[in-house]
Amino acid sequence: MDTDQLHAMRHSLAHITAAAVQRLWPEAKFGVGPVVDNGFYYDIDLGERKISDQQFAKIEKEMRKLIEYGDDFERFTMSIDEAINWARENGQPYKEELLNDLKRSGTTAARDLDADELGLATDGDAAVEEVSFYKNGTFTDLCRGPHVANAKDVGAFKLLRVAGAYWRGKEGNPQMQRLYGVAFATQAELDEYLERLEQAKLRDHRKLGKELDLYTTSQLVGVGLPLFTPRGTVLRDIMAQYSNQLRQRHGFEKVWTPHITKKELYETSGHWAKFGDELFLVTSQETSDKMALKPMNCPHHTQIYASKPRSYRDMPVRFLETTTDYRDEKTGELGGLNRVRSLTQDDSHVFARPDQIKEEINNLLAAARELYETIGMKLRVRLSYRDDSDGYLGDKGLWQSAQAQLKAAVEANDLDFFEEEGEAAFYGPKIDFMATDAIGREHQVATVQLDFVQPERFGLEYTTDDSSKRQPVMIHCALLGSIERFLSVFIEHTAGWFPFWAAPEQVRILTINDTVLPYVDEITSILTDTVLMKPVKYNEVRFTTDSRNESLGKKIREASSMKIPVQLIVGPKDVEAREVSVRTQSREEKVTLSNLVAYLQEL
Amino acid sequence: MDTDQLHAMRHSLAHITAAAVQRLWPEAKFGVGPVVDNGFYYDIDLGERKISDQQFAKIEKEMRKLIEYGDDFERFTMSIDEAINWARENGQPYKEELLNDLKRSGTTAARDLDADELGLATDGDAAVEEVSFYKNGTFTDLCRGPHVANAKDVGAFKLLRVAGAYWRGKEGNPQMQRLYGVAFATQAELDEYLERLEQAKLRDHRKLGKELDLYTTSQLVGVGLPLFTPRGTVLRDIMAQYSNQLRQRHGFEKVWTPHITKKELYETSGHWAKFGDELFLVTSQETSDKMALKPMNCPHHTQIYASKPRSYRDMPVRFLETTTDYRDEKTGELGGLNRVRSLTQDDSHVFARPDQIKEEINNLLAAARELYETIGMKLRVRLSYRDDSDGYLGDKGLWQSAQAQLKAAVEANDLDFFEEEGEAAFYGPKIDFMATDAIGREHQVATVQLDFVQPERFGLEYTTDDSSKRQPVMIHCALLGSIERFLSVFIEHTAGWFPFWAAPEQVRILTINDTVLPYVDEITSILTDTVLMKPVKYNEVRFTTDSRNESLGKKIREASSMKIPVQLIVGPKDVEAREVSVRTQSREEKVTLSNLVAYLQEL
Repeated sequence: MDTDQLHAMRHSLAHITAAAVQRLWPEAKFGVGPVVDNGFYYDIDLGERKISDQQFAKIEKEMRKLIEYGDDFERFTMSIDEAINWARENGQPYKEELLNDLKRSGTTAARDLDADELGLATDGDAAVEEVSFYKNGTFTDLCRGPHVANAKDVGAFKLLRVAGAYWRGKEGNPQMQRLYGVAFATQAELDEYLERLEQAKLRDHRKLGKELDLYTTSQLVGVGLPLFTPRGTVLRDIMAQYSNQLRQRHGFEKVWTPHITKKELYETSGHWAKFGDELFLVTSQETSDKMALKPMNCPHHTQIYASKPRSYRDMPVRFLETTTDYRDEKTGELGGLNRVRSLTQDDSHVFARPDQIKEEINNLLAAARELYETIGMKLRVRLSYRDDSDGYLGDKGLWQSAQAQLKAAVEANDLDFFEEEGEAAFYGPKIDFMATDAIGREHQVATVQLDFVQPERFGLEYTTDDSSKRQPVMIHCALLGSIERFLSVFIEHTAGWFPFWAAPEQVRILTINDTVLPYVDEITSILTDTVLMKPVKYNEVRFTTDSRNESLGKKIREASSMKIPVQLIVGPKDVEAREVSVRTQSREEKVTLSNLVAYLQEL
Repeated sequence: MDTDQLHAMRHSLAHITAAAVQRLWPEAKFGVGPVVDNGFYYDIDLGERKISDQQFAKIEKEMRKLIEYGDDFERFTMSIDEAINWARENGQPYKEELLNDLKRSGTTAARDLDADELGLATDGDAAVEEVSFYKNGTFTDLCRGPHVANAKDVGAFKLLRVAGAYWRGKEGNPQMQRLYGVAFATQAELDEYLERLEQAKLRDHRKLGKELDLYTTSQLVGVGLPLFTPRGTVLRDIMAQYSNQLRQRHGFEKVWTPHITKKELYETSGHWAKFGDELFLVTSQETSDKMALKPMNCPHHTQIYASKPRSYRDMPVRFLETTTDYRDEKTGELGGLNRVRSLTQDDSHVFARPDQIKEEINNLLAAARELYETIGMKLRVRLSYRDDSDGYLGDKGLWQSAQAQLKAAVEANDLDFFEEEGEAAFYGPKIDFMATDAIGREHQVATVQLDFVQPERFGLEYTTDDSSKRQPVMIHCALLGSIERFLSVFIEHTAGWFPFWAAPEQVRILTINDTVLPYVDEITSILTDTVLMKPVKYNEVRFTTDSRNESLGKKIREASSMKIPVQLIVGPKDVEAREVSVRTQSREEKVTLSNLVAYLQEL
């Protein structure tokens, strides 16, 4: 399928949705109706009337009538003043507002809403004199197009949900109803998508987070600030430990820095300007210090590097810190663990000589590859280079050599990669890792970034063998990214069936009756002494015993609903045979007591 | 020695100090001159003239002359108005200000300066009509007394230091010079004290923190916000790990909570009012949330407890979290690690049924006892009970039963204890632990507190076996207290010679020449595989190799100055004998390679 054609189909469906809504509720006032991933939406103001999920069928029925009717989409233009009149006469104040903005500058609208999302006929900065409209049957809409030729060509669709959305995304503006639909060229593709959506729903980490008792939220604490229960904390800790161990073997050492800092640190680093309104500001009541919660850790780490003289022999210096950063995200964007205000980074910084870049990158790539291989996610990396524009800081020769070293390291690690010019950060080239989950969705996870700028801004240096001073290069790296975000991916990737080594509760012993209790003591003493060494070292087995006076069926159902990877069922016959019945997600088998440790270590 | 008598000696020395200063610099204007721990000070305004350490001998010489002269201290009184005249005529504006305050209310002065510190003749709230003076030779001072009879009776003294101090402790007021002296009844006692002071100076954790590369500070980050280097982070982590392991064996589970919260959490808990200006306020630029950095963790933990229904069978619920709290301490009080704005607590909270208090306390006491025994610090505990006043919340019967359970647990643990009525927190009785360091100083460290109030304020509950709802009791506990403060004590207690298991760098291999390098490889491979299990589990040996082309003497000097507990010296003879020369702080001995692991595990 041609993506332009699919785009046109979805865009036309947005119009047909609006047309259907207008037929049902003629008082409807329309905002914008752009194409989005997998479909489209339209923002609609129906005053006090709320569209409910139950009304989707009614709207869809109206849409299907319009499609069956088969009007052509007809394009025509008006002068901007005619268009403003049209909007006013047709009782469309939102369109009128957009047109007035367009008339003034051609960009006011584009500044707070993407021009394409608006579906407006504007491309430039200049004031607009003429705008285009599309008419389908009796419904006319201000629109840049393109559209399908005829309403019959829109493909398969389904209305999916409705959500509140402020006009132009601004709190305080009128709240509209954003009606979302999905659309594909064929019914088969739509069905496949809906099936995947159903799958994703079952895996939704917010649902599983609650069912598996992994984290909670509190209105008293605030949105975007999850609190982790004991089970969720096991996951956090074990993943951080794994991520750390993968780097400690390459000489990384842990450091610790506070979560706040004076503004001066970020003025020096340049982040004060860059992070701007994403910073949580901190006020001291005792001093006049202007402070902020840290949104990233690199400036703090430079201060440890700078705390003593460094020689070329000490390089590279490698710091590792799992610590929580705070970013003042828009509350509308907060949800579950995917986007939070308290994000814990498994962060690290290498301070290296330029000749050490390749080996350091190589070690980090190997670590990332091992981690995502272990959890069964396919990796793909994007190499982001500079282009010829002026926005990049640092020596051009250093950039070129660094980019070549990055690519060589990516190739040496056999990573699937693609390159993009102009996608580098202003301070250096970078490698972004994308991991594909069990239902085919790709998530951005780890990142490795070179930085030529902060070493300069903080005046970092090391002494070379001829006693001159040189500037180190910094290499930023997080393997998990933010642990909270990683967990949202990991929970959905595994659907809550975490690999044995990572499961918060790895083993549950289920007794058939109380005669087996002395034998259960033997088992627990074996489990207490069992420590896994792979993939994470010193991983003591986490187990519980369910010896309640309940039916085995009930015990199994509960253990399975908590997705305990290993259930050890113990009955009188097992005692006699000195074995246990092991039940996992995929199978059931007998394991002798003497083989139990080896069995678990193989999982 | 009678403490009243010692107090009088020190107070008289304060007068003699002022008298000596006045003889040297007649323009001196005097503030207050109280007795403090181990000595006294006098606040003096000398205009632009700064007293330097070099002038102490000169002042002391003048003081000795006055003492030798042997005038009596003579008390007399004046009416308040005469006294004000006296101060004005003698050019003593600070005394005049104090006297005017006294005349007005008798308490103005006492409100911002302790009445005793002022040495003023006031005891009550009423306006003062008459004040007392003491005269010694030609020097007369407003003073409550008492003093020694004669200047010859002041004992042994030494001026110790001079520091800036705002008049009445208020920023913006004139800055005075606070001249400190130490004084004891006998020269022997003074010498002993000065010797201990010298010892303490050598152990000063700020000095050792720098020499041993444990932590650093940055003006860009701010005061009271230390950053921990790799070596210091090892210490932090291993102590936290130990403290956690001691509780995990009693069923504590780790949780994780963010460092910020909405104000509403603390309004509910009651801390908003209590912590007041010690809170760092956090401003969101995206929302109107009023937020704060957490100064303690209990309110957050209640939200995890409250996140699901709890039954009497689930109790106790035990949460453990090592996390950083932020308190906006006065910058004047910040210094080294002793008092910081970022304090990391090894915090825990038990939510227990009232009948479980004793056993839970017992487990925590056992943990505290083991920890301080391991690091060789003697513990003493204070049991703080309520009195009959009204300031306490919670059921009186519950208090009595809880206090009895606390005492029983303290006795069962053979802890040296004393009891104080009226010292409990308003929310429950508590146990405070005091640990004595290697040079005899006592430090407050761990704490165990009962809390009847927060469970009520947050509406926490569990279901009893008859399906009714009951309120749990909370037990707050930190074994290290704040890790930063603990480290300041631990560094000074050990003088930087950390026990083997805790040392950031435990072993350094020192080569005599390069012929031993293959043998060193054998040693490092043994060390790499060595993991200590006591007192902290999974403690991999941290070692380095110094194979530089430097003299052995230099290598040993450097390793000793870094206080590396185990230095393995390897020369050709050691290779031949397949042994190593082990050098520790106290001895040197040969250990065969095959015994090396056992040797290290015994340290």
